[in-house]
Amino acid sequence: MIRAGIIGATGYAGGELARLLLQRDDVEIKWFGSKSYTGQDYTSVYQNMYQLTDAVCRSDDMEQMAEEVDVIFTATPQGLCASLVNEEILSKAKVIDLSADFRIKDVSVYEQWYQLKHAAPELIQEAVYGLPEINREKIKSARLIANPGCYPTCTFLSVYPLAKEGLIDLSTLIVDAKSGTSGAGRGAKTANLYCEVNESIKAYGVASHRHTPEIEEQLSYAAGKPVTINFTPHLVPMDRGILVTAYASLTENAKKLSAEGIKEIYHQYYKEERFVRVLKDDTCPETRWVKGSNFVDVNIKIDSRTNRAVIMGAMDNMVKGAAGQAIQNMNLMFGLPEDRGLRLAPMFP
Amino acid sequence: MIRAGIIGATGYAGGELARLLLQRDDVEIKWFGSKSYTGQDYTSVYQNMYQLTDAVCRSDDMEQMAEEVDVIFTATPQGLCASLVNEEILSKAKVIDLSADFRIKDVSVYEQWYQLKHAAPELIQEAVYGLPEINREKIKSARLIANPGCYPTCTFLSVYPLAKEGLIDLSTLIVDAKSGTSGAGRGAKTANLYCEVNESIKAYGVASHRHTPEIEEQLSYAAGKPVTINFTPHLVPMDRGILVTAYASLTENAKKLSAEGIKEIYHQYYKEERFVRVLKDDTCPETRWVKGSNFVDVNIKIDSRTNRAVIMGAMDNMVKGAAGQAIQNMNLMFGLPEDRGLRLAPMFP
Amino acid sequence: MIRAGIIGATGYAGGELARLLLQRDDVEIKWFGSKSYTGQDYTSVYQNMYQLTDAVCRSDDMEQMAEEVDVIFTATPQGLCASLVNEEILSKAKVIDLSADFRIKDVSVYEQWYQLKHAAPELIQEAVYGLPEINREKIKSARLIANPGCYPTCTFLSVYPLAKEGLIDLSTLIVDAKSGTSGAGRGAKTANLYCEVNESIKAYGVASHRHTPEIEEQLSYAAGKPVTINFTPHLVPMDRGILVTAYASLTENAKKLSAEGIKEIYHQYYKEERFVRVLKDDTCPETRWVKGSNFVDVNIKIDSRTNRAVIMGAMDNMVKGAAGQAIQNMNLMFGLPEDRGLRLAPMFP
Amino acid sequence: MIRAGIIGATGYAGGELARLLLQRDDVEIKWFGSKSYTGQDYTSVYQNMYQLTDAVCRSDDMEQMAEEVDVIFTATPQGLCASLVNEEILSKAKVIDLSADFRIKDVSVYEQWYQLKHAAPELIQEAVYGLPEINREKIKSARLIANPGCYPTCTFLSVYPLAKEGLIDLSTLIVDAKSGTSGAGRGAKTANLYCEVNESIKAYGVASHRHTPEIEEQLSYAAGKPVTINFTPHLVPMDRGILVTAYASLTENAKKLSAEGIKEIYHQYYKEERFVRVLKDDTCPETRWVKGSNFVDVNIKIDSRTNRAVIMGAMDNMVKGAAGQAIQNMNLMFGLPEDRGLRLAPMFP
Repeated sequence: MIRAGIIGATGYAGGELARLLLQRDDVEIKWFGSKSYTGQDYTSVYQNMYQLTDAVCRSDDMEQMAEEVDVIFTATPQGLCASLVNEEILSKAKVIDLSADFRIKDVSVYEQWYQLKHAAPELIQEAVYGLPEINREKIKSARLIANPGCYPTCTFLSVYPLAKEGLIDLSTLIVDAKSGTSGAGRGAKTANLYCEVNESIKAYGVASHRHTPEIEEQLSYAAGKPVTINFTPHLVPMDRGILVTAYASLTENAKKLSAEGIKEIYHQYYKEERFVRVLKDDTCPETRWVKGSNFVDVNIKIDSRTNRAVIMGAMDNMVKGAAGQAIQNMNLMFGLPEDRGLRLAPMFP
Repeated sequence: MIRAGIIGATGYAGGELARLLLQRDDVEIKWFGSKSYTGQDYTSVYQNMYQLTDAVCRSDDMEQMAEEVDVIFTATPQGLCASLVNEEILSKAKVIDLSADFRIKDVSVYEQWYQLKHAAPELIQEAVYGLPEINREKIKSARLIANPGCYPTCTFLSVYPLAKEGLIDLSTLIVDAKSGTSGAGRGAKTANLYCEVNESIKAYGVASHRHTPEIEEQLSYAAGKPVTINFTPHLVPMDRGILVTAYASLTENAKKLSAEGIKEIYHQYYKEERFVRVLKDDTCPETRWVKGSNFVDVNIKIDSRTNRAVIMGAMDNMVKGAAGQAIQNMNLMFGLPEDRGLRLAPMFP
Repeated sequence: MIRAGIIGATGYAGGELARLLLQRDDVEIKWFGSKSYTGQDYTSVYQNMYQLTDAVCRSDDMEQMAEEVDVIFTATPQGLCASLVNEEILSKAKVIDLSADFRIKDVSVYEQWYQLKHAAPELIQEAVYGLPEINREKIKSARLIANPGCYPTCTFLSVYPLAKEGLIDLSTLIVDAKSGTSGAGRGAKTANLYCEVNESIKAYGVASHRHTPEIEEQLSYAAGKPVTINFTPHLVPMDRGILVTAYASLTENAKKLSAEGIKEIYHQYYKEERFVRVLKDDTCPETRWVKGSNFVDVNIKIDSRTNRAVIMGAMDNMVKGAAGQAIQNMNLMFGLPEDRGLRLAPMFP
Repeated sequence: MIRAGIIGATGYAGGELARLLLQRDDVEIKWFGSKSYTGQDYTSVYQNMYQLTDAVCRSDDMEQMAEEVDVIFTATPQGLCASLVNEEILSKAKVIDLSADFRIKDVSVYEQWYQLKHAAPELIQEAVYGLPEINREKIKSARLIANPGCYPTCTFLSVYPLAKEGLIDLSTLIVDAKSGTSGAGRGAKTANLYCEVNESIKAYGVASHRHTPEIEEQLSYAAGKPVTINFTPHLVPMDRGILVTAYASLTENAKKLSAEGIKEIYHQYYKEERFVRVLKDDTCPETRWVKGSNFVDVNIKIDSRTNRAVIMGAMDNMVKGAAGQAIQNMNLMFGLPEDRGLRLAPMFP
């Protein structure tokens, strides 16, 4: 039995973690951490869990938590995990951080984009970027996981084969992403009220969203050189789901291949990956087909008029974009089948 | 391994059955029946199942299906199951009918409300009304299950303890119900287009909805006398969920009890029922807290100003109101734990 | 030119008032009051008004406002208007209060349901309940209007002919109402976040909602005797719209009439009313057909099985339920055509 | 009094035309054409218009219509207008075609993208592309208007100043657009059912959408040379609204300018345009702020990291993207103030 603790258990990502872990027989959530609701029944916050747990929310004392659990998930605002974690904690419990604190290797880049002083820069190098499809082996032996951001996960898995094979000119890459509103978190802000979000769509964080350097860093590893991109997220009136539509010019190498040839590379890259589904023919990914699951659906369309690839990916931001991926990482870290607790058929409608 | 067949596998209820059964290790779907999509890949219709099955849709030949499977689910329009099922089929396979064909014992009532000639009246008496919380033992030995309607399930489980204990005057019972749009089915009708349903609410089938006699029949068994009610369903701009708000005058017996005393009766009735959750204090059921699960959440409020009980129930119409309840019945019929494959924590948001 | 001031101009009802008044040539909004946004551009809050006004938000100083305007609208939380208004203000400007402060004649009833000490009880008797279809003449000469609540407006206009004619037993009246989320206001509360409201429906304020005594009081005037009812509002995932479904037993007088005869009474009552539309035949009101307009659509269905009337009304809670009705009252108070600025065709979809 | 006829009056764009025209005193709709509903009350289809008209739907006999009206709007599928219109009709009535039949000057391009034989190629040259902000003078004297597509209107007005001034490299232009579901029309298709659209987002028509050549043609006029672009539309779960996010590399000329300098060009281009609002500072357009109005809100963001412009535009696809623009054209053609009937403040929420 794996004993787990969640800091930030009453946010949306924390709630999804709790929901997925509570359905497992081999994991016990020992600690539901929630600064806002300390002392209250967890099910008074998330009534869906009523009768599935009788836990009471506790503080975010990570040191004490490390005494009681084997793995700690931090589903908290940027900066908190870095301010709490330390060597002693890591010597007792594995830590999977769903915030951005350990995703970016260059601390100055982190501090510039996040406008925060990093509280534990000495741990950045050790942290493993928890994208199992890329870093599976490193994850297995990691103590500290930087669970990837939702947009970066969907973008990177969609673009990776082309980037790795040098088939697109990454200096032309433009990522236009669309997200459901759960990605905005559970904070009580006017901008996230029902009537403000419903029946509207908008871009936000244009040319300044903090997932930009994370995407760039991962793409630069794939490409073997620095990458600078345009990334524009949009807010969509739906609960869950991320759709990425990305555009890039084909390289000369790519132009020698047929559209089928390029598609075949996707099949080769992902044929062993349970959670990446390369769609048939010209089927476009749609977020409805992945809701509640750990899948990323990807496809590409080669536009022969413009010699560009249009690359598309769809994903549930709460699952593969947050809690599901964190559990995938936990499974790897504990030597379990990677898909345990994640064999979830998407729910439709 | 239970071999299952679904007639109507490309409707919403059929799709939910497929989704839930495909996640089980002890059931194999041998036959995805779909008149509209015969010969096409099932996942070309329900892309969420991509890579989870490679089944091709087949006809609705129930006789052939009975040769190949142990249990047949019919998730089809009224009249179809009755027109196909017969003694020989029942001798080979168990049948769980999600349509209304075998729910109503008095065939003349069925024919009047449904405006259909019943094609198999000789099987009506044998059919068991598949509400496990009430008819558990009969279900275990049944060959033919009339899986309850969505509104009747939610209404009946919400009202049952009061009806059974004689605490409300059933002649005053008014049931005002609200349903998500998946209940309207997947047929291509203008009235169910996105722009017609979105941003609106309406009543429909006022004083004429066909679930009325089904609710009345079940309530009359509980009360030991005929019951006539008002039942008004409403269409709500959401995918899933049914909320029932019912009103009835308290009887003299009830007035002798405190509100807590009446609530305690609910706890007594449902304390062993995994899928009925009696909420705490004055917490109102909300459909968001049961989405994707087999739960019915119920609560009551005694209004001392009017001496009425306000009775509320919330449920996922696709799960406890259709596919989940059908699987609950299947589990009972095959001697399996009743909740196998149904230990689903509600998904939020 | 009528000079108008709005206290609470950055709430939803205040925003709707501004939107409707800004489209008129004969009204000038001189004062956009907003405690939260004082000093900020109005269009920084409501970007829809960009380039339509360059107003800056001001305080809620009603005394100063009365010096500058002819009519003051208060679209504010309960208690504020009563705490600000006084004889001197009323001597200078007409006041239309969209809160509940002056709707209930019995101050003790107000104080009990609203849990507030009334700050200006001496003005309650003078205030006119601003439902033009009932109190048109009194409104014309009023200084202080209690603009009706959204639920009471829709309920009362739907039920009124039956109540007035003694065709229903008001002791059996049950009002089940459903509202869009704009009715919950623009305050930043977790419960009103997009992901909390979307894809769900719930009852709230069961047996305790503060519009209950307002409905009861108005019905008692129509019936000529005290009325006690059950009223249950529900929150629906849509921006605008209220649907009322009400149930009552027919009196002996009503049973002598045919359904058509009862319907004819509705036509008689409302034939001169521009904003009340009695629908044809069995057409059910739907909120989509009134969105953005000042209409209330009503219809009834007589259920001969239960001898009850099912009474339905649909309305835009922001227009006829708030800002539109306030303007209708303003028009009457200033001797203008009652429908000026309100000849709005409902927007669909 | 202008007498108007609408062919396709029961589609969404036709309904919006009817709604806007019915609110005018100087226009009378003499003919509500609807092939599907001929002979039925118009308000039985669009209940929002109940009591605002008692019209009965008529056929799409354009010849007869031309005898009875001054202006004909065709809000119909591609190909119909071209098959009906002729010199005689144009000699009697002005025609404003909301379909694509006369938007593209090169008939072979039209026939290739629309997969239709053009039935009236001889009229293409005469037809004026009805974008008043560009072709105002030509519109005034036109007999036949090709009312622009929704995506092209929003895209072109957003990009125009940069294209015209040579500030972006149009060969790098990528247009990622998002539309509400009313754009998909009122046909009864499974793909447009509530449960299929709700809670999802998808791209469609990737590298093949028929608005692509229309955008390219208009941009090529602005740029003075041929333009080839990527255009990707997406379907968003909302009724109304289009958001365009476009990306293009800055030219050397542009790099010499500051971001403010480029923005200033927008202000210059649109300072006299009532319906194009250049937003302040970095405010992003959002579709909620233009709903129900004829506005296009635009803004740009210069990304100095990539030397690209991110260009954004938001618009109501039913108004400026269809019916509103058609009325704007009508006003010009009849010598009326261009904004008559279109001084609509956007409705929020």
